Amino acid sequence: MIDLWRKHFVLSENMLEMECTNLTPEVVLKTSGHVERFTDLMVKDPKTQECFRADKLLEDAIDDLLEKNPTFDTATKEEHLRVQRQADAYSPEELDRLLVTYECLSPSGEPFSQAFPFNLMFKTSIGPEGNSVGYLRPETAQGLFVNFRRLLELNAQKMPFAAAQIGLGFRNEIAPRSGLLRVREFCMAEIEHFVNPDDKSHPNFASIKDKKLLLFGADDQLGSGKTKTLSVGEAVSTGLVNNETLGYFMARTQLYMEKIGMDPKRLRYRQHLATEMAHYAADCWDLEIKSSYGWVECVGHADRACYDLDVHAKATNTSMVATMKYETPVEIEVAKLKFNRKLIGMVFKKDARAVSTALDALAEDWKDFEPIAKALDADGKTSIDGFEVTKDMVSWAQTKKKVHEAKFTPSVIEPSFGMGRILYSLLEHSFYQRDMDEQRCVMRFNPRVAPQKCAVLPISSGPEFNVVVDEIAASLMDYDLATRVDKSTAALGRRYARSDEIGVPFAITVDFDTLSDDSVTIRERDSMVQIRLPKKDVHSVIFDIVHGRITWESCTEKYPVVQVDEGEDGDNS
Amino acid sequence: MIDLWRKHFVLSENMLEMECTNLTPEVVLKTSGHVERFTDLMVKDPKTQECFRADKLLEDAIDDLLEKNPTFDTATKEEHLRVQRQADAYSPEELDRLLVTYECLSPSGEPFSQAFPFNLMFKTSIGPEGNSVGYLRPETAQGLFVNFRRLLELNAQKMPFAAAQIGLGFRNEIAPRSGLLRVREFCMAEIEHFVNPDDKSHPNFASIKDKKLLLFGADDQLGSGKTKTLSVGEAVSTGLVNNETLGYFMARTQLYMEKIGMDPKRLRYRQHLATEMAHYAADCWDLEIKSSYGWVECVGHADRACYDLDVHAKATNTSMVATMKYETPVEIEVAKLKFNRKLIGMVFKKDARAVSTALDALAEDWKDFEPIAKALDADGKTSIDGFEVTKDMVSWAQTKKKVHEAKFTPSVIEPSFGMGRILYSLLEHSFYQRDMDEQRCVMRFNPRVAPQKCAVLPISSGPEFNVVVDEIAASLMDYDLATRVDKSTAALGRRYARSDEIGVPFAITVDFDTLSDDSVTIRERDSMVQIRLPKKDVHSVIFDIVHGRITWESCTEKYPVVQVDEGEDGDNS
Repeated sequence: MIDLWRKHFVLSENMLEMECTNLTPEVVLKTSGHVERFTDLMVKDPKTQECFRADKLLEDAIDDLLEKNPTFDTATKEEHLRVQRQADAYSPEELDRLLVTYECLSPSGEPFSQAFPFNLMFKTSIGPEGNSVGYLRPETAQGLFVNFRRLLELNAQKMPFAAAQIGLGFRNEIAPRSGLLRVREFCMAEIEHFVNPDDKSHPNFASIKDKKLLLFGADDQLGSGKTKTLSVGEAVSTGLVNNETLGYFMARTQLYMEKIGMDPKRLRYRQHLATEMAHYAADCWDLEIKSSYGWVECVGHADRACYDLDVHAKATNTSMVATMKYETPVEIEVAKLKFNRKLIGMVFKKDARAVSTALDALAEDWKDFEPIAKALDADGKTSIDGFEVTKDMVSWAQTKKKVHEAKFTPSVIEPSFGMGRILYSLLEHSFYQRDMDEQRCVMRFNPRVAPQKCAVLPISSGPEFNVVVDEIAASLMDYDLATRVDKSTAALGRRYARSDEIGVPFAITVDFDTLSDDSVTIRERDSMVQIRLPKKDVHSVIFDIVHGRITWESCTEKYPVVQVDEGEDGDNS
Repeated sequence: MIDLWRKHFVLSENMLEMECTNLTPEVVLKTSGHVERFTDLMVKDPKTQECFRADKLLEDAIDDLLEKNPTFDTATKEEHLRVQRQADAYSPEELDRLLVTYECLSPSGEPFSQAFPFNLMFKTSIGPEGNSVGYLRPETAQGLFVNFRRLLELNAQKMPFAAAQIGLGFRNEIAPRSGLLRVREFCMAEIEHFVNPDDKSHPNFASIKDKKLLLFGADDQLGSGKTKTLSVGEAVSTGLVNNETLGYFMARTQLYMEKIGMDPKRLRYRQHLATEMAHYAADCWDLEIKSSYGWVECVGHADRACYDLDVHAKATNTSMVATMKYETPVEIEVAKLKFNRKLIGMVFKKDARAVSTALDALAEDWKDFEPIAKALDADGKTSIDGFEVTKDMVSWAQTKKKVHEAKFTPSVIEPSFGMGRILYSLLEHSFYQRDMDEQRCVMRFNPRVAPQKCAVLPISSGPEFNVVVDEIAASLMDYDLATRVDKSTAALGRRYARSDEIGVPFAITVDFDTLSDDSVTIRERDSMVQIRLPKKDVHSVIFDIVHGRITWESCTEKYPVVQVDEGEDGDNS
């Protein structure tokens, strides 16, 4: 699944891939805002001191209320559901009030304590002196942001470009639950696509613009409660999805999900409500996958604007800008400055450089410098980044300059995949029971993602069969096709059923005919159809199916189909 | 490199693979002994409180001493080197004395503080209440040990078997240094091979017994200081290497190293000194790889005996034994017990069960129970696991029992790979400069492990070339061959040199002939030989070379070789 992700996103789109450390120095996560704001709201049972996530208590209370009152009219019900959908967007005070409104009581029967923020990052100390704080990264993205300059250089300064990272994220969840869905350590795959904020078009948008997605916009969540099916092209042109690049990745995610075998009918894209979204974000859409736990957020698609690079650039005093060449040079108005460096040095000492750098930055565009110039002319002084600058420190002239390129801080579009959640959902979407026998469970993993591609089974345990089995298994391994050999004495039908249960798509059987004519059968898991073919063709047929070059159907046309009644055989076991 | 590791070890030997969490509850690492003993000895500068690793200070001091005294006679020199080789095996008191002997002073000019142990694990707290301690795992092995029963079950109870894990390890190194060699977070690949302690033979030993290894035994380290070249078969039969399974993995490691392109002349196996080895370990051999940092430990091969499973079994009160079927049943002498359960319950209360379980365990072999029986007969009481058992609690009879299988706690043979160190060493072993021009640097990554397999280069920037370049790149990608397209306007020689520098083994050039006859050239990096072939053959030729099915040499026989003088072309850039 991860290999296919890498191929679908990283390789086929020429992204850069990077691996950063899990342990992250505090300063990085302070800058990104995680130390201050990466929190969930928690309440305590006042008697036992047990902790609970406040939003989950509210969600559960509303579930209970609706279950107990099936006669609520639609408007009332809808009002409660609206509160539930916004549960994780409320302030501590709002949650305190709502927990009272919905009469949530702690296990010991008391009202809960007031809601307070709990930081979800795992903290540790780095180095022998113990005075350097680090956190386990809560997301992989920050490593890519702090390495932005290096990535841009690796990409030969070309924009737009994307960098990807596959690795672990850690969150000290207050209440891990729902099987694999809410865990404290999980595999993430994140893409940071850097674009010019003034041009978020995507060169390959045309290739996916007709792809239809099930969309649940913010307005519909607060209003009708209904989803719509729209093509990505329509969604972007009507402004529902903010821009082409965001829409492009939503469509690519959909294609990936279909490729790994997810049920398209159980996929929807939910837009973040204004109250859920960070102030800097332009638009966010979560891919939600339906499983027995309901609709679960599995992939985020966020347009994070320039926030991340801006804060890291400021904190490290490092330029994190890209340049765009103009086709023809452009004339702009700038201020030409002349500093009284001696005076600036005397007044600001070690801060002298920061002051002149700040002035230089403003001087690059006359529109930015004009208010400074006016203030200095009028009052003789003004404040810049907290420093009082006086008129005798700098003189200026308004002038024109030809520029060949523009500098800008790139915006970031971030698709972020929770691989564990996707895996869990895929397990649910893949499970089924045979019509004829509900004890026969099957995982319908498609050949590309199935952890094991083939089972090789001898019909009898004689040594002459084992030789052929080992030879076939070795030829499959040699083609990197993970293979499972089952030489147990169980009936063949029982062994087919075992390999069905763990989702092996193909079973190769070595039978009595094999010994005389070197042919074997291949059985396809879902149809249970078998074909007979020379054993020397097996590895290339399986290889080509796994890599999507031929289909099983074409094989059933090329090779003779064998009639087998498995029901009976299966009963023998 | 990791893919090839998985194929070489996990897939081809049918190992189980598992991924456990990085965050590990304290109890697991207390049981394994890491909380108490996973330490390095540290000293402090008494003025600045700066911390240093005591053994590294000693090693450096000896380096300095030898450098300043080139006239030392061989015996004196050898004596100092012996001390240096044992540096990390001394006790705190010994190190204190040696730091004085070798006149090590802190940066502030004072003698160092006394050496004290510093735990290398990163500590954090798990859960919202903050009262549950966890550590980042210092090795991946413990996860496999605590899951032993599940793994054995997955392997259908069959022994011997191996489980592998690839993942991160974390160590709070006192002094990270030496580039990628000593870091605080690193990728490890570990195998735990579980065997019967009475039979450590390996079924495939014959396949590698003639493989020659450069061995540096404990005796030679303390004596001659010289290595020997021996076949694994000789090493095991003479008892230098403890057993077949350990020798088997050492040989398999050597084969892996050669497969990824490591220089075999810079690989040696160093046996642990008795003072370095844990008390329970039977034998340990480190693969050391030579680089500019000297001989560096990159892979450990340890026979850890039954220690790990024993301690976890005891701590969790869970049986971690495997069974071995006898071909014919065996009669053994056992004790048949009869408990006075009422009395035991009254005396031991909640510990009653532990006492009867301990007695039952001893009763399984008369040899184990005999001393208990004698003590009870003689004194009327005895002590079992710290409990005083009296004669009125249990009666017994010596009897015979037919058994069909033996239960045993498996021994563990553990090859443990530091993937970061291997990668770094491979970079050094792969680097060279062209004879004709030392500015032309090349990485000789072999096609199997090269991160990018091909470069595709158009000879000119016209759109008709780009179409062909994109088409070839797409066909390579479709075969999972990571491909780099370089359409820049630099001279072709310059672009070849660029792809050499990052170790791309093949460069495919689209030239003017391509437009008329659909043929392209493939250039091999090290020989700089080029062949001309139809563009439709490119992906299959590269694919077969990368997967080791055909050689480049066979391609130069099959397809016409083109004469190119790169020296000149290169100068154009």
